[in-house]
Amino acid sequence: MASIQAVLSYVKEFFPGFVEDLKAFVRFPSVGTDKKYRKETTACANWLAQHLEHIGLQQVRIFPTLRHPIVYGEWVKQPGKPTLLIYGHYDVQPVEPLPDWSFPPFDPIVRGGYIYGRGTSDDKGQLFAHVKALEAILKTYGKLPINVKCLFDGEEEMGSPSLRHFIQTQKELLKAEVAVLSDMAMLSADHPSLAYSLRGSLSVELEVKSQGVDLHSGNFGGAVRNPLQVVCELVAQLHDQNGRITIPGFYNGVKTYGSAERNYMRQNGPTDNKILGDAKARYGWGEKGFTAYERTTIRPALSINGIVGGYQGPGVKSVIPAKAGAKLNFRLAPHQDPQVVEKLLRTYIQGIAPPGAAVNIHTYLHAKPYELNLGHPALQAGQWALRQGFGKEPVLMRIGGTIPAVSLFREILGVSTILLGFGLATDRIHAPNERFCLRNFKKGIETSIWFMAALSQKANVSGSVGTRLVRKGTASTG
Amino acid sequence: MASIQAVLSYVKEFFPGFVEDLKAFVRFPSVGTDKKYRKETTACANWLAQHLEHIGLQQVRIFPTLRHPIVYGEWVKQPGKPTLLIYGHYDVQPVEPLPDWSFPPFDPIVRGGYIYGRGTSDDKGQLFAHVKALEAILKTYGKLPINVKCLFDGEEEMGSPSLRHFIQTQKELLKAEVAVLSDMAMLSADHPSLAYSLRGSLSVELEVKSQGVDLHSGNFGGAVRNPLQVVCELVAQLHDQNGRITIPGFYNGVKTYGSAERNYMRQNGPTDNKILGDAKARYGWGEKGFTAYERTTIRPALSINGIVGGYQGPGVKSVIPAKAGAKLNFRLAPHQDPQVVEKLLRTYIQGIAPPGAAVNIHTYLHAKPYELNLGHPALQAGQWALRQGFGKEPVLMRIGGTIPAVSLFREILGVSTILLGFGLATDRIHAPNERFCLRNFKKGIETSIWFMAALSQKANVSGSVGTRLVRKGTASTG
Repeated sequence: MASIQAVLSYVKEFFPGFVEDLKAFVRFPSVGTDKKYRKETTACANWLAQHLEHIGLQQVRIFPTLRHPIVYGEWVKQPGKPTLLIYGHYDVQPVEPLPDWSFPPFDPIVRGGYIYGRGTSDDKGQLFAHVKALEAILKTYGKLPINVKCLFDGEEEMGSPSLRHFIQTQKELLKAEVAVLSDMAMLSADHPSLAYSLRGSLSVELEVKSQGVDLHSGNFGGAVRNPLQVVCELVAQLHDQNGRITIPGFYNGVKTYGSAERNYMRQNGPTDNKILGDAKARYGWGEKGFTAYERTTIRPALSINGIVGGYQGPGVKSVIPAKAGAKLNFRLAPHQDPQVVEKLLRTYIQGIAPPGAAVNIHTYLHAKPYELNLGHPALQAGQWALRQGFGKEPVLMRIGGTIPAVSLFREILGVSTILLGFGLATDRIHAPNERFCLRNFKKGIETSIWFMAALSQKANVSGSVGTRLVRKGTASTG
Repeated sequence: MASIQAVLSYVKEFFPGFVEDLKAFVRFPSVGTDKKYRKETTACANWLAQHLEHIGLQQVRIFPTLRHPIVYGEWVKQPGKPTLLIYGHYDVQPVEPLPDWSFPPFDPIVRGGYIYGRGTSDDKGQLFAHVKALEAILKTYGKLPINVKCLFDGEEEMGSPSLRHFIQTQKELLKAEVAVLSDMAMLSADHPSLAYSLRGSLSVELEVKSQGVDLHSGNFGGAVRNPLQVVCELVAQLHDQNGRITIPGFYNGVKTYGSAERNYMRQNGPTDNKILGDAKARYGWGEKGFTAYERTTIRPALSINGIVGGYQGPGVKSVIPAKAGAKLNFRLAPHQDPQVVEKLLRTYIQGIAPPGAAVNIHTYLHAKPYELNLGHPALQAGQWALRQGFGKEPVLMRIGGTIPAVSLFREILGVSTILLGFGLATDRIHAPNERFCLRNFKKGIETSIWFMAALSQKANVSGSVGTRLVRKGTASTG
């Protein structure tokens, strides 16, 4: 343990500088989904690659993709020790609605123990916890206790469209025993958390066209079909009165869970009140018969992310738009297949679309759901590391979000991913005034250091699918 | 007639200069509904006032309002002759979606006999036809055959919110026998048109709030009510399967028309095919049992102009917005009262709003419907003037749009308004690539000159509500 204490001292001493480095990282408006930020997103990748060089990683490379580059760096001079693949993403969500920000989204500032800015929590800050852990170990000892490969994505917020091809063509480069990723919220500030399941995702845009041109709603109101109205009518037909999705066959593939799992979730997961409190919502909503935690993890959901078309500015514009659209985001429960769901959706929409309205469906993203066996040895290493880093007993959680990389690592590389959450539910990721708790940044760095130490002691960290379910009080690594 | 020929020669000689003046007028981005164009809208009003001075009007004044000023000018040196109030508006619609423009909206150019730019047809070009008619007469003879008062609004596209107060406080200044306004489309390029009815308008925005903050649709999808979905569900409940508006009591006040009027409309108005052709629509839609012309003039309609909230940009953003809204535009048929309809809407929406969703309704605009007695002497003067100006038999039309000024002139000043259309249905008003036919600009100027000449010959131009309906082949004036 003495050796780790020296590393932790380095973290303590240089933490203010780490925060300054994070600010520099956040200053790049790397909004991957918006073409106008293409240049800045590339600049962010270049900066990150230089930073990996600077902390002592080797073979640092920038792999171009069709959109935003993948940043890679490694340190693999511990033959016989396990190899850890660290994944994260440097792209960030759009900042709209900009007027709702109290702080500049790309000029980060520290207030009351938080750093504010787009990407501070999702995912630049959490990614950086691992980078700074590597720096602390390498600067203290000149070497790592295990082998490490860093893979930083620039397209996560658009569903990592280049990642499948990249992993398939770089299987040898990415060979590892286990992967780690920090891109999630802890259950609360007192409950360090590991995730053992993620939902899948299917993101599509319905586009409805009725007329060839935008029309004046005074002159033409009552004469022609309004695509915006058609979109609303289609969206209104996607849920029933019980909050269930109406697409025929939609629930056929959904895994059902027995009372053991549901009781475990009830005892260890967030309550309905906790989830509604985090959402600042007075009322819950969703599929009847399930808790809010279940509805956001082991049950699928459909959210409308935006309705496109017509006028969204201030005041009045008397327009019937030529076309309109709806951005739909399905979150898929374990065992659902996004390709199958997409087919069911297409069939249903074409069946209910009214005459005179041409409906096209554009698919942005498919990602499979993910579930990790609870007895996985690296999961145990993660639990132990969180216990050391945060000084609290960690919680095993299912999360409702989607990380395509996690499914791809399992499918293509046969590698399971340990998800260590350093964020908080109140970080306002994807929303105005995103922030990251600096206390968690520091504890995240320490946890990453302990995690690498734990893995270096394990004979087999890659686990197997058949391992017996083990939940709490499992023997700690160390 | 010899005297008018000299004026028409002036128009012919100086028409290229008139087009240049119109370009200068269009160059002001006087988007009245958008606060960021406030300065440019004021600059446009100043330019227009200077232009009225320049052509020889007197008492030119700029009346400030809470938003955009009213421009006034007069020439009243013909005691014993009628006074004509010329109304028009210098504010223009927003230009969104900007990428759909093939021409710069505020740097007008002439192509193939059309001038392209925002406001060229609605209403700067049509307003300018009357201004240039005044210029031609004044520059030729130094006097007008009648008295004229010009009233140019800077808030028409936002529903003329300052106009009621202005007219009420300036009754003496605005005293007139009749008003004229050109802010409409002809039935076709071969059918010069007068309007004898307008629909009223009620514009509101529904706003739905569910949560205090925007949420990630992965983490919270399935847990909380999505305001965007609530908006879609509310909108979907505003029409039934027959295209009728479902608000209880909505149709109670609507005037019904007998077969005489409906036959006249069928014989003289646009066919369904014409209206669908103008709309570039393959299919019609609306209240069953009525033609498209009826549905857009003597029947009310509800159009969704935009759905606000969430993400409208390119690609994906996994957001459940904290709030969402719908911009609703009702067009009201003769005898409907916008205040009554607003109350019915509020009652209905509060009744169908789901629990946990707070719905607020913000009202932007009330305007009453308008109908003109067909035997009105100034209407006959207008018919005669169009016949002279365009060399074709004019058509009497009902139009689906709304011009609050027309209702206010009748209500407060007791003045009826003659609507002379110089636009075309293909002018793309309120849409990208708005344009105005230069041939119509010229014929509009000539028509305005003939109209003033015709009024100067009339003993009584103010008409009365009781005059017998006279439709076609009425004795021409002059």
